[in-house]
Amino acid sequence: MARLLILGAGVMGSAIAVPAADNGHQVTLVGTHLDGEIIKALKADRSRHPRLKAPIPEAITPLEIEALSSESFRTADMVIVGVSSPGIGWTIDKLRSLMPEPRPIALVTKGLQPWEGRLRSFTESVAEALADQGVTQRMVMGIGGPCIAKELADRQPTAVIFAGQDRDCLERFRDTMQTAYYRVALSDDLEGVEVCAALKNFLAIAVSAMWTRYREVNPQPHKTKAMNPGAAAFSQAVREMAGLARWFGGRSETAYGVAGLGDLNVTVGGGRNSRLGFLLGEDMALEAALSGPLSGETLEGADTGLVLAAPLEGAFAAGRLDPADYPITRALIATIRDGKPLAIDFTAIDFV
Amino acid sequence: MARLLILGAGVMGSAIAVPAADNGHQVTLVGTHLDGEIIKALKADRSRHPRLKAPIPEAITPLEIEALSSESFRTADMVIVGVSSPGIGWTIDKLRSLMPEPRPIALVTKGLQPWEGRLRSFTESVAEALADQGVTQRMVMGIGGPCIAKELADRQPTAVIFAGQDRDCLERFRDTMQTAYYRVALSDDLEGVEVCAALKNFLAIAVSAMWTRYREVNPQPHKTKAMNPGAAAFSQAVREMAGLARWFGGRSETAYGVAGLGDLNVTVGGGRNSRLGFLLGEDMALEAALSGPLSGETLEGADTGLVLAAPLEGAFAAGRLDPADYPITRALIATIRDGKPLAIDFTAIDFV
Repeated sequence: MARLLILGAGVMGSAIAVPAADNGHQVTLVGTHLDGEIIKALKADRSRHPRLKAPIPEAITPLEIEALSSESFRTADMVIVGVSSPGIGWTIDKLRSLMPEPRPIALVTKGLQPWEGRLRSFTESVAEALADQGVTQRMVMGIGGPCIAKELADRQPTAVIFAGQDRDCLERFRDTMQTAYYRVALSDDLEGVEVCAALKNFLAIAVSAMWTRYREVNPQPHKTKAMNPGAAAFSQAVREMAGLARWFGGRSETAYGVAGLGDLNVTVGGGRNSRLGFLLGEDMALEAALSGPLSGETLEGADTGLVLAAPLEGAFAAGRLDPADYPITRALIATIRDGKPLAIDFTAIDFV
Repeated sequence: MARLLILGAGVMGSAIAVPAADNGHQVTLVGTHLDGEIIKALKADRSRHPRLKAPIPEAITPLEIEALSSESFRTADMVIVGVSSPGIGWTIDKLRSLMPEPRPIALVTKGLQPWEGRLRSFTESVAEALADQGVTQRMVMGIGGPCIAKELADRQPTAVIFAGQDRDCLERFRDTMQTAYYRVALSDDLEGVEVCAALKNFLAIAVSAMWTRYREVNPQPHKTKAMNPGAAAFSQAVREMAGLARWFGGRSETAYGVAGLGDLNVTVGGGRNSRLGFLLGEDMALEAALSGPLSGETLEGADTGLVLAAPLEGAFAAGRLDPADYPITRALIATIRDGKPLAIDFTAIDFV
C-alpha cells in the first residue's frame, strides 16, 4: 500500500484519486484555498463531490489547506499535483515551504512558462524551484492523454501516458495507479507530453470554432456543427502540435498518440476552452466572451496562447520554425493576444 | 473549361460536381440504375437534390443511365467515379463497354478487394480491368480526406488529398477542382490514401461503439457519449490504420494526415457506419442491427472487415504483422465476420 498526497481537490485532483483508492492505496486529498467548500462538503458526505458530481471512495481522506503540514508530506510516498494551471505558483510555494524531504511528484496540472527567452513546462519549473530541496528533474513526472475528470471518477476506460526521465520512478507510479479502466503507458518524452498537454487546450479553441463558424451557412435544427471544417482543422492542429513538440525538444510521434491527438480529440467539444472556441466561431470577440458567457472561468488554452506568442515569433524570426507551417497557431495568437477576430483561412493552409 | 463525366448521382457523386461547376467546368452527372428518381427530379427542378437536400448548379447536366453512351466518354476530359462501394463492378462494366479511349479516372468510391491472396484497392482493380483499353495505373487517381457530401454541396470548407502516380495528371485534376472551400493537396501515396479511405469506415464502427458502450455506466440526460473511451479508441484506431497502410504498401504518415485521422474524425459520429457502431456499443448483435435499424443500408465498413479478415490473418500467421498491434481491428473482425459481440478490451491494448 502506498500513501499519496494529492494537491487540489477540484475535479481533476479528485478524479485521479479514484484509481489510486481502487488499488487499495491511502490517499489524502488536499483542497487549495479555493477548495474550502469542497473539502467541507466531502467531510460531511462522501457520496457526492460537489463539483465532480460523483461519489468519492472512503479510502480518500479530504484535508483542508490549513491542516496541510510537513507531516503530511513526510508520511506520503509521492505527491500528485492536480490544481488548475493558475495554481502552479501556489503549489510550488507549498512544496517549498512544507515538503521536508524530496518525493516523486507527478503533475496533472499543465502549462508552459516563459523562462530565459524560451518556454518551459511546469514539470521543469517545479524541479528547478525544488532543486535545493533535493528534488531532481528525474523525480518529476507529467501525465498526458484523454481524461475528462467526471468520466474517470465514473471509472469509464481511458488511456494515459506517464512521462519522465526515470524509468523506475515511472514504473512505480504506474503500478500504483493502473486499473482496468485507467490504462497507463510510459514515455521518456517528458517535453513532448508536456507541450502536447498544454497545446491541446489552446488548439481545441480553434478546432471548436470551426464547428460553429460554418454551422450558420445552412442552419438545420438537427445539426449542431460543421464536421468537414472541424476535421480539416483537427488534422492541421495535430500537425502543428507535432511541429511544436519537436521545437520544444520533444518528439513529434508523441503528438500522434494518446497524449496528442487523443487528448485533443476529447478536448474539442467539451470544456471551457472548447466553449470559447464555439463563441469565437460565432464571431464573438474574445473580450466579449471572457467578460460575458465565460466570465470567471480559467481558460488554460488562452493563457497558453499568451505565453507562446513571443517565443514562437522569435523562432519564426530566427528561421527555426516556418510560419507557413503554423497557420492555426498564428491565427489563434492574433485573436488571443491582439484581440483580432479569429480568422482561419483554409486557402492559406497546405493540408497533407 | 474542362468537361467532366461523373458516374453516380448519389450524395457523393453529386456533391463533388459542385466545386467543378463553380470553377466554370461543364459537368455531366450520370445516375446509375439506382439513381433514376434522382435524375428525374433534377431534370425537373435543380433547386433541391432529393437525397443531398441541396441545390445543384445549372452547369451540371443530369443524365439518365440509358442515355450514357460512348459519345459521353469521348467528349469528356476526365471521369470521376462517385458510386457507392457495391457499385464498383457496375462501374467497371460501363467503363469497359462504353469508354472508347483512355481518360484519367478519379475514384471517390472506396473499397478493398481480395486479389491473388492479398488485397487491392479499387483504383488498382479499375486500372487492371481497363488495361486493354489503354488505361494505365498512372491515369487512375484516388481521393481521400474528410468530406461529408452535404457539407461539400453547401460549400463548407474542407481539405482533401488527390493521390496517384502521375504528377501532371494530379495537378490538372487539382487545378480543375480546387476552390476556396475545396482545398486539394497532392500525394504519390495512392496505396496509403486508398487503404485509409477504406479503413476509416471500418474503424469508425469501433470508435463510435465506445461512445455508446460507456454512456450507460452513468446515464445523464445531457450526455450523449463517453468521451474518454472514444478518444482512446480513436487514437488506437489511427495507429492501426498507420500500420495497415504500411502493410498495404503505403506510408504510415498518410494515416496521420487528412486522409487518415482527418477522415476518421469526420466519419466517427456521422453516417451509417457510425450508426452501426452505436448499436454494437449498446450490445445489439450485428445481425439484429443489419436486419433492424440498418436494414437496406450499404455498410462499407462492414464490407471492408469481411474482405480484410483472411489476408490479415495470413499476415499474422506469416509474422508480417503482430496481432498485438491490431486489437481494434481484430475485435471488429470477430464481430463482423464471426458474429461475436464487439469486445474492445482496454486492458489488452498497449496505448502509446
